[in-house]
Amino acid sequence: MRIALGLEYDGAAFCGWQTQPDRCSVQDALESALGQIATQPIDTTCAGRTDAGVHALSQIVHFDTEMARPHTAWTRGVNALLPESVSVLWARQVDMAFHARYSAISRRYVYYLLDRPQRPGLLNGRVGWFHFRLDIDRMSEAAAFLIGEHDFSAFRAAECQAKTAVRTLHFVAISRRENLVRLEFSANAFLHHMVRNIVGSLVYVGCGRQPAQWMRELLLSRDRNAAAPTFSPAGLYFAAVEYDRDWGLPPESGTTEFEEALFGAV
Amino acid sequence: MRIALGLEYDGAAFCGWQTQPDRCSVQDALESALGQIATQPIDTTCAGRTDAGVHALSQIVHFDTEMARPHTAWTRGVNALLPESVSVLWARQVDMAFHARYSAISRRYVYYLLDRPQRPGLLNGRVGWFHFRLDIDRMSEAAAFLIGEHDFSAFRAAECQAKTAVRTLHFVAISRRENLVRLEFSANAFLHHMVRNIVGSLVYVGCGRQPAQWMRELLLSRDRNAAAPTFSPAGLYFAAVEYDRDWGLPPESGTTEFEEALFGAV
Repeated sequence: MRIALGLEYDGAAFCGWQTQPDRCSVQDALESALGQIATQPIDTTCAGRTDAGVHALSQIVHFDTEMARPHTAWTRGVNALLPESVSVLWARQVDMAFHARYSAISRRYVYYLLDRPQRPGLLNGRVGWFHFRLDIDRMSEAAAFLIGEHDFSAFRAAECQAKTAVRTLHFVAISRRENLVRLEFSANAFLHHMVRNIVGSLVYVGCGRQPAQWMRELLLSRDRNAAAPTFSPAGLYFAAVEYDRDWGLPPESGTTEFEEALFGAV
Repeated sequence: MRIALGLEYDGAAFCGWQTQPDRCSVQDALESALGQIATQPIDTTCAGRTDAGVHALSQIVHFDTEMARPHTAWTRGVNALLPESVSVLWARQVDMAFHARYSAISRRYVYYLLDRPQRPGLLNGRVGWFHFRLDIDRMSEAAAFLIGEHDFSAFRAAECQAKTAVRTLHFVAISRRENLVRLEFSANAFLHHMVRNIVGSLVYVGCGRQPAQWMRELLLSRDRNAAAPTFSPAGLYFAAVEYDRDWGLPPESGTTEFEEALFGAV
């Protein structure tokens, strides 16, 4: 049978999603815990492989097993074996055709950026930081150039393994609450470092170093070297994955409930 | 001259506010950094000595020094020398009669409590947790018995060094956003563990183990052994200190701005 899980994690505690030889990843921790419950090795596949330091409000995973277990075994049982910085929120048996990665219709990321003279203390590891107040109207104007289907090579990491750099960005929403700027990105899929590279370039626009129109030039250049440096992973949250309702996943996946509880409707 | 500082910190990284022989406290880290800037030992006094694991949105500190430094030296200069989980937000020269602790008119604490079957992952170390949904109307009803001037011995830690257990609780406000319950407490001052002990007993009421009226009985009993166990430090935030405006401290101290940015107007 195939089981789907929803989980959240604090990325600061891990070397990213993907399994590593020294077992420092979220996948390593999860597969170890699942394997103990299943009493057999478990291989997992996730919706989006987050980098070191990147958090998840709702990561979706699937795995196959012959071992029948109550759903509480895959949630509370697994949580008892996981590090404190990761928690399985729900488990559900799904059709064997469901695939956490390939069945996903769209992904949503949120980036939180503190813009004030003093670096973060309380929110260290939870937010990106810029020392100067950003003009979010200019940033929104710049971000609008990215909406739609484009070749995002200018915002793609050199190590990106995707076959094509063409992605469809559905929307970018930028808002502020006091010194906390919130950037929300929705796309069919994202390239490696795409959100953090876009955030870096939007900060160049927001602080006045580049005009909004520069974002359009960057996009058309398809030249990664033209864009700003990759912004910190600390402020990046893998927020939601959208699937067809027919898969029968819990309504939590794809909603913004927990995220709103965390940071408020900024 | 006397300098006042406002700072924030993630308490999970420290053994509490107060200086310890192994130098693991916020005070140790701050005094070490201040001493390097002043090139002389600095002793600090804070508004509220937080326990291990308790956070601060706005801790207020004062210290005396003969060394004239620009304010940026006491903020950005000190921050460059502090651990990442603590940050000085502002510095201001104040009258020698100002005292971070004794000049405080009132203190405000906020407790965040996640009530859902699954333990926290992303918010590990940042929130308290109860596995069952709490009835916050019952909790508010119970908390109302505590408002006013009372002997709070029933909610006082055995180690508490205060001369009297009489405190004036100005208000308790309990609200919810999704699975996150927010409890806000304002008092002239708090006893050791007072907020965490009250939260523990309110949880007993919220989950139906005790009626609201029990809180009144607890208070009148003045018996610590009658109350519920002390709740986790992870969800506790020292949120604000109120001083007379004549001291000329920044308006940030005493406001809820940053807290709202963090968690939203729950």
